[in-house]
Formats: sequence, C-alpha cells, structure tokens
Amino acid sequence: MTASRIFLVGLSGGGKSTAGRLAAQRLGWSFADSDDEIERLSGRKVPDIFRDDGEEAFRTLELDALKGLAERDSIVIATGGGAVTTAAARELMGEGFVVWLSVSPEVAAERIAANPATPARPLLAGDMRGRLEALLQARADWYRAADAAIDVDGLSPELVAAEIANLWSEWRRSPLQPGERGYGGARLAASAPRSLEPCAFVRTPTETYPVIVSDGCFEGLGEVCREAGLHGRAFVVSDTAVGPLFTHRAKAVLKAAGYTAETLEVPAGEEHKTLATVETVYDWLISHRVERSDFVVCVGGGVVTDLAGFAAATCLRGIPFVHVPTSLLAMADASIGGKTGVDHARGKNLIGAFAQPKAVLIDPRLLKSLPARHLRNGWAELIKHGLILDAQLFADLEAASAAGPPLMSADLIARSVAIKANVVSEDEREAGRRTLLNYGHTVGHAIEAVTGYATYLHGEAISIGMRVAGTISRELGLLSDDDFARQQALLRRFELPECAPGLSADAVIEATLLDKKVRGGSVRWVLLEGIGNAVTRDAVPDAVVRRAIEEALPPQA
Amino acid sequence: MTASRIFLVGLSGGGKSTAGRLAAQRLGWSFADSDDEIERLSGRKVPDIFRDDGEEAFRTLELDALKGLAERDSIVIATGGGAVTTAAARELMGEGFVVWLSVSPEVAAERIAANPATPARPLLAGDMRGRLEALLQARADWYRAADAAIDVDGLSPELVAAEIANLWSEWRRSPLQPGERGYGGARLAASAPRSLEPCAFVRTPTETYPVIVSDGCFEGLGEVCREAGLHGRAFVVSDTAVGPLFTHRAKAVLKAAGYTAETLEVPAGEEHKTLATVETVYDWLISHRVERSDFVVCVGGGVVTDLAGFAAATCLRGIPFVHVPTSLLAMADASIGGKTGVDHARGKNLIGAFAQPKAVLIDPRLLKSLPARHLRNGWAELIKHGLILDAQLFADLEAASAAGPPLMSADLIARSVAIKANVVSEDEREAGRRTLLNYGHTVGHAIEAVTGYATYLHGEAISIGMRVAGTISRELGLLSDDDFARQQALLRRFELPECAPGLSADAVIEATLLDKKVRGGSVRWVLLEGIGNAVTRDAVPDAVVRRAIEEALPPQA
Repeated sequence: MTASRIFLVGLSGGGKSTAGRLAAQRLGWSFADSDDEIERLSGRKVPDIFRDDGEEAFRTLELDALKGLAERDSIVIATGGGAVTTAAARELMGEGFVVWLSVSPEVAAERIAANPATPARPLLAGDMRGRLEALLQARADWYRAADAAIDVDGLSPELVAAEIANLWSEWRRSPLQPGERGYGGARLAASAPRSLEPCAFVRTPTETYPVIVSDGCFEGLGEVCREAGLHGRAFVVSDTAVGPLFTHRAKAVLKAAGYTAETLEVPAGEEHKTLATVETVYDWLISHRVERSDFVVCVGGGVVTDLAGFAAATCLRGIPFVHVPTSLLAMADASIGGKTGVDHARGKNLIGAFAQPKAVLIDPRLLKSLPARHLRNGWAELIKHGLILDAQLFADLEAASAAGPPLMSADLIARSVAIKANVVSEDEREAGRRTLLNYGHTVGHAIEAVTGYATYLHGEAISIGMRVAGTISRELGLLSDDDFARQQALLRRFELPECAPGLSADAVIEATLLDKKVRGGSVRWVLLEGIGNAVTRDAVPDAVVRRAIEEALPPQA
Repeated sequence: MTASRIFLVGLSGGGKSTAGRLAAQRLGWSFADSDDEIERLSGRKVPDIFRDDGEEAFRTLELDALKGLAERDSIVIATGGGAVTTAAARELMGEGFVVWLSVSPEVAAERIAANPATPARPLLAGDMRGRLEALLQARADWYRAADAAIDVDGLSPELVAAEIANLWSEWRRSPLQPGERGYGGARLAASAPRSLEPCAFVRTPTETYPVIVSDGCFEGLGEVCREAGLHGRAFVVSDTAVGPLFTHRAKAVLKAAGYTAETLEVPAGEEHKTLATVETVYDWLISHRVERSDFVVCVGGGVVTDLAGFAAATCLRGIPFVHVPTSLLAMADASIGGKTGVDHARGKNLIGAFAQPKAVLIDPRLLKSLPARHLRNGWAELIKHGLILDAQLFADLEAASAAGPPLMSADLIARSVAIKANVVSEDEREAGRRTLLNYGHTVGHAIEAVTGYATYLHGEAISIGMRVAGTISRELGLLSDDDFARQQALLRRFELPECAPGLSADAVIEATLLDKKVRGGSVRWVLLEGIGNAVTRDAVPDAVVRRAIEEALPPQA
C-alpha cells in the first residue's frame, strides 16, 4: 500500500506550490515545498546555493530535504522542477503517489513573467520559454513516468487541486503495481510491456486499417508504421497543448524504427480548427518537399486528428496518415472512421473530407494528463456506443462505475472502438447505419451551437442530447421507462449533465434544423428501441420534440 | 455556299468595329459598321433616333441599313449590339458567316468607360456593367447561336482579327449545314439534335460515372443530372470569363429539368486557383445552407473544374458534382479522372483530393468561343493519348490535319476521352498505369515552372516535353526514328511548339526533380516503345536526359 503522501512534479511555472497547498487543504493534510525546506535547513537562498556551489551540490541538499519530508504522512509535497533527475529522489517519491502537473513551456513562461514574487529560478536565466522547452525535453521521460498527470494549462489552481484530490481517491482504490510504475519501480513506464495486436479493423471500400488499443502501445508507433507499409519520412503534427508531452517521444520511437521525423505544433484549441491552420500545415509539409510516399502522424485530441488528417488528405491529393489520439473523446470517436476536417465561421466541421488513416494507435496511458472533465467528455461517447448497439458494454459500464467514479480501462475503450469500427466499415459515408452514431447529437450539436461552444464540452452536450432523444423514444413508445432510467442513472454516475438550464427551446430547435443530418429540411432522429438497439425516425411530431427539449432546458436556477 | 460576308455580333465594348476593320484588311475585304450606315442613311445620330423615335423605329432603320450592306460581297460588317434581336436581321445575317465577339460585361464596361471617344450608347445609361449584364442575359441565346465565337477578353484587336480570319477559312472548308445553324436556319442551335448516350464510363472502386460527348449535349444537362440520381438543388460554379457565356443557359436547362439553381462566378485565371478562392465557394455554398443531397455543377476550363470540384469534394465532407468543361484541354484531360485541387505558392496542384464527379458532359459546341491557341492547347492532350495508348487515334489525328488546320470533331474528343476514362478506371490513384498519362509532363511541368506559367500554355509545354521524352525514347533504342519523326510532324501540323528557346537546361532539370512524380528523389520517366505504346523507366542516365533537354532548349533566336 502506498503511503498517504503526494509528490507533485513538473516544470517551474506549473503551479505546484499553489495547487499543492490547496489540495492539502482539501484533503486535510499538511503541505511542504522542497525548495522552502532546503532554504530552511541550509539557511541559504536556492539561487545562492546554485551560484556558489553548483547544481550537483544543490541536488544533494534537495535529496536530504525530501528524505526528511518523506518521513511524514498525509502530506502534499511540491518538488523542485529538477528533483526527478536524481535517481534516489525518484526512489523516495515512489513510496508515495506522484502527480505531474504538466504545463506547456509557453504558459509556464507567461506565468513566471507575470509573477514578480516568483523566486529567481537559477536554471531559467535568459530566454525563459526556450529554457523551459529545453528542460521539458530533457526531463519529459521522467515527468511522464509519474503515476498520474494533469494538463494544467487553462485550469485554475482550485481546479488543479480538486483534480489532485480526485486522482488520489482513484489511486487509493486502484494503485498501479510496483512493476508498472516509473517511480519506486525499477524502470520507466515507457518500457512497460505492450501489445500491438489490433482490437479491430476498419474496412472501407478502398482501405483496411487496424486500430490498436493497449497500455503502452505508443512505444510501438514506429513498428506500427512499418507494419502499415509506410516507408517515407514521418511528419508529426501535434498542438501546443499536448505536443510538449508527446512529440519528443513520438519522434524518438519513429527514429528508433528507422524513420526520419519532423514535428510541428499547431496552436491548441477549437478556435484554431480552421482552414488557416490547415494552410500552416500545408506550408510546413511543402517547405519540406513532402512526397506521396511520406506520411503524417497526428498526435492529439480530436481537433488535431481532424485537422491534420484533413491536411494530409488534401496535400498532394492525399498522403497517408496515422492517428495517435491523446484524449478519450478522440480515442472513442474522432480518430476512428475517417471524418477529417475543420470548422467554418458558420458552423463546425463544414469543411472536410472522408479519408481513412493507415492505422490508429490508442494508448490509454496517454490519458494520464487529461483533466477529469475531459475524461467524462470521452466517457459520453463510450456510453453512447453501448446505448445504440451493445447492451453488454452498457452493463459493463454500469459495473465499472458501481463503486464510485469509473476506472479507465483499455478493455472498455477497445470494445467501444470495435463498435465504431464495425459501423464505419458497413457505411463509411454515413448513408445508412453510420447515422446511428449520431444518437444524442442532433440536440447536442444544437446546444453547442447555441452556447457558442463555450459552455459545454462535446460529450456534455451529447449527454443532454441523449436525454432528449431518450425522452422522445419513450414518448413514442419505443423505450421503456426502466431503460430510460438506466440511461440517465449511468450518465449521472459519470457526472455527465442531464439538462442545460436557461437555454431557449426555440433557439435549440432552430439550431437542430441547421445540422448536417437534416435532409430536405426535416430532422432525421436517432432513437432507442431499448438499450443496445438504435433506430432512425424521420417524422417525429414537432410537439413531441418540443416537449422533450423543454424538459431538458429548465429555467436558470 | 455561304456568301463571302462576315457579320460580327456581340455586346458593345467587345471591339466589333476595331477588330472588324483589321480583319477586313487581312482578308482584303471592305468593312462597314451598321450604326455608321444608319447615321449616313438617316442623317441623324443614333442616340437622337432612340430618344426621339424609340427603339422600335431604330430597329427598322437598322434592318434597312443591314439590307443595303448585305447586298455587298467580301465585306466584314460590325452590327449593333441589339441587331440580333430582330428576326429579319438574323435571317439576313444567315446568308453570311456570323461571328460572336464574346466579351464579359466587366471588361466591356471598362473598355467603354476608358474610351471617351466611344459614341453614347442609348441602352447603357446608368450602371454600365449592370446594364451590360442584363443585355447579355437577354440576348445570350442569340449570340450563342452564331456560327462561331471568340472570347475576346484579354485579346488584342489584332489577335481577334487574326482569329476572325482563321475562323473564316475553317468555315469555308466546312460550313455548318443550314439545319444546324442558328441564323438563316429556322431555329436556334440550342435546339439542335443531340445524344446523351455516354461515350465512356469511368469506374473507380467507389464510383461509376458516365462521360457524354456530343454536339449540343449541354442542353441535356438537366436530364443528365436526373439520370445521375441528383435530386437536391444545383449550385453552378463558373468563372468571370466563361460564366457570362454559359451559366445563364445552364441555369435555364437545370430549371427546365425541375431543379432550383444558384450561380457563382469566381475570378478567371490560374492566379485565382487558390485556397482563398475555394473559401469564397465554401462561403457561398454554406450561406445557402447547402446540404449533402445538393450538387455542384462546374462549368469552365480546367481551373474551374479543378477548383470547384475540390470545393465540392471538401464541403460537408463531399457533396456530389458534375463537370461541364468548356475548354478542349479540360474536355480531354482535367474533367476526367477525379483530380481536383488548387495551387500552392510553392507549386501547382499541390493541394487537392481525388474526388470523382457524378457525370461529365462534353459539348464541343461550347468550344466556339475558344481562341485558336487554346484549342491547340487541348489538341496536345489528344495527340498524347494517341501516342501513349492508341495508334489508330494517332493515325486519325494525322488524317484530320492532313489538309490544313485540324477540324474539331466530337468523335476525336470522344475517343480521347475513352482512353483516359479507361486508364483512370484501372488506376484511380496513379499507383501504376495512370502514370502513362504523364507522357511529356515531366519536362512540360518543369518548363511551365521555370517560365512562371506565363510563357507557355500547358499543352504547349507538354508538346515540348513530348519532344524531349521522344528523344530519350529514341536514344534508349525504344522508339524508331520514323515514329519519332511522325510524332514531331503531327505536333508541328497542330502548330504546337517543339522547343523552348533561351531556357536554361540546368533550371529545367532542377525543376523536374520537384515534380510530384518524383519517387525517393529519382524521376520516373514515361517513354514510348513505338506509337501507341508507352512504358515507364526509373533509371534513365543523367547524360541522356541532359542531351535531350538541351536539344529542345536552343539559344534564344
């Protein structure tokens, strides 16, 4: 059993002290900062120690300080950014729960610059951001080897603290085994055993490709590309949020497999999912004289896989690409099925193409850095897959969440992926069966549009949309009260919303009519005829639709 | 036999008087302007007649003037823009050869505004361009019914005059029969008999579509769309050069078949074949709330079919489209095979997708407005198809041009199209056989690139490229001296160039290495093993390539 001790690791500027202090308050624990402890023990300032005695001497003092702190229990310890580079320090941390607060060098540099009270950072003199990037590259493997990670860009210290507490309660229920751990264990998580056996194949009229789901399979990226017959140069596209976490390693494993690899990070965020960003990808590829035998590796959430996939599909009339999704939503949904594209000012995903990757590589370990809210966002798609086509998956999701927040599992992801792969194989172009995947999406998309994509994550919006579609199904006598109740209970257990207070039903109904799934002006609804059995209906009476939508849009509390 | 009398018709601002006068000089004929003749006969100014007596009275005087002029022989007569609206005037003109000088309202308005000496145009008061557009719409059917047409935008009066003389000599050899003519005959060319029987089908793994080649088939556009199963709204995309000639009629025939039709004209010219122009198409489609069941009709040369095809292929992840090529090059090449896309600042066609149309409609009558140089541009592709795969087509092209400049023939186009359709059906993605279509293109593209796409038309550049590839074939012992001589003789007969004086061989060789057809840095050459039998070769010695290129690039004369 791990001690009740949390170590925070990560770059300076990630808010380890601030969030750690708040997390300790939440848990009713004490808090310590290793740099403060060093100064207390030595009676000297950290920059002075660096300047007078050098980094090695500092690391020795740091280890002593950590040793003292590691004797205490019920404590959150913020470590210095470089503590992970000392083997003995990692060994010590291995007795507790290690959380990486992952911050992009960009955001870290901004925060450090914005805070004049920040103590001087000896290793960061000069070009702050450049130095941070170099440090991240050098330490990335050690940070990644933490037991959990939080992507803190854009999160408030309070949210990060809540996240730390959540992760801790999950960890207590189901810690990694010593052999699986990067700290305390003998080796990095990077070298954990992994399977490259596909869990499913997507078969379209022109392409067949494998989807691999396994813990640690990211390390097999190079092999998978070889297996897929790719023999040119690799062009890795990621974004500024996840790029710093993964592209360094992606490049390393591609090189180990004999590829030349270039990397590009596009700006993170849905607001950059535009043709203008695609043009920057074209410019980059073309400036490298890309050839049709080269290939693109798309590493990121759905924005990156959609956008980089589209750029690849439309450069030189199509160069091959491989998807490495890093969010649960992208793993369960965006990366499978060949929908690529970008947004238009008038609507989401209006520009794009169907283009299938050569392989999809899903490594649930990459989710360690995903905030809980974004994990829930992905669970919504898994739940949907169970609801529309697989009653057993639905039941297993009920079981996995029976004892509290659900546990991530490669098996659940693999089964969800297999369902989607199957549907897409039958109907690549969404002429028939693929429409079923839109369960909850008619109203979900409308809610996202009406709220300007700012209030609800996609999974949250479709959770509300599934409630509306479920209500309609029940009203039309397709779905039993019991099954509807099971759907809502499961969504609640995954902390997914059931309603969108304060929205106008008129606005939402109007927005449903703009959806791509509209045919000749009338909405094609995906409904449930029992759990695991979705159907489509063209002519749902307006009054039924309106009642269901109004029920899900109570007045603002 | 038609009298030696040429009537020029078309909008004001098209240069009928200037070019007509020059054409008369070339032919050694006399020249007359019907407006001048009216003023001479009546002793009054045209604007005064309009103002005092109205348009009807003017048309009566105009008819009288034309009657007088039509008694003369060996005369070029510039008619007033509205003369075609009088049935008796059309009957008179039918005794001669009627040429439409087609000018876009935009260019006409500019020219009229730029020339203060232009007499006042009674029908053009107020918004000049708007009035011209309205007049063109109203008279388009009558203009189009001329025996020949010249697209005069961008052509100097000298070139237009040369074109008139060329067309006359062709007409003398092979005039349309009275039943086929719009003037003198009983009816408009628009209602000529036509066949909608496909001459070929393109069959790719995901699509099968017909290619229709016949005189007048443009009139069957609506029926063809119905046959193709298209049932939504039609979105006609054209450009500012050919749009004014054809979109009005396209809209009319689509409407006659029960479709709603919208039209858009993008700016004409290769320099507008950009992602920015594609965005204007997206904006237009999306502002009309386009749905996946709607379709795009691409009416124009290769720039329009490539660009609008790409916009369709990438809007809503692909809406159906139909190609109506209006240049011989687009008919023989660009419209068949599903290569869509636009240029990038670093190279042509670097952005794009493979996307197949639902049908291709090729009406050789639309070529009436194509300048001779642009016709030659298209012939180059027909000759290429004969050279690589069809010795009989090559022989027939020899026969068709034996007695002077070649005659346009739906049959020759249809056979060329069938060859391309066949090759594309076997190899949509250019993995194998489709490469053969690149005969002459390695050096052709390089010459276009080195000259900034400003000096040679595509067909001219590949004519030179075919000479180089032919030379290499001969040097490697694949092609006999006789067959090489036949190739060159035919290119000469079609007035296609054999060399590019003054270019640097180094620059051209360097540019061949940037071509999309390069694989792993070495050029894959398409060569001839006899006429009608192309092959590919990867390892052609550099010295052989250099010699062949240098031979085709003599010092500037």
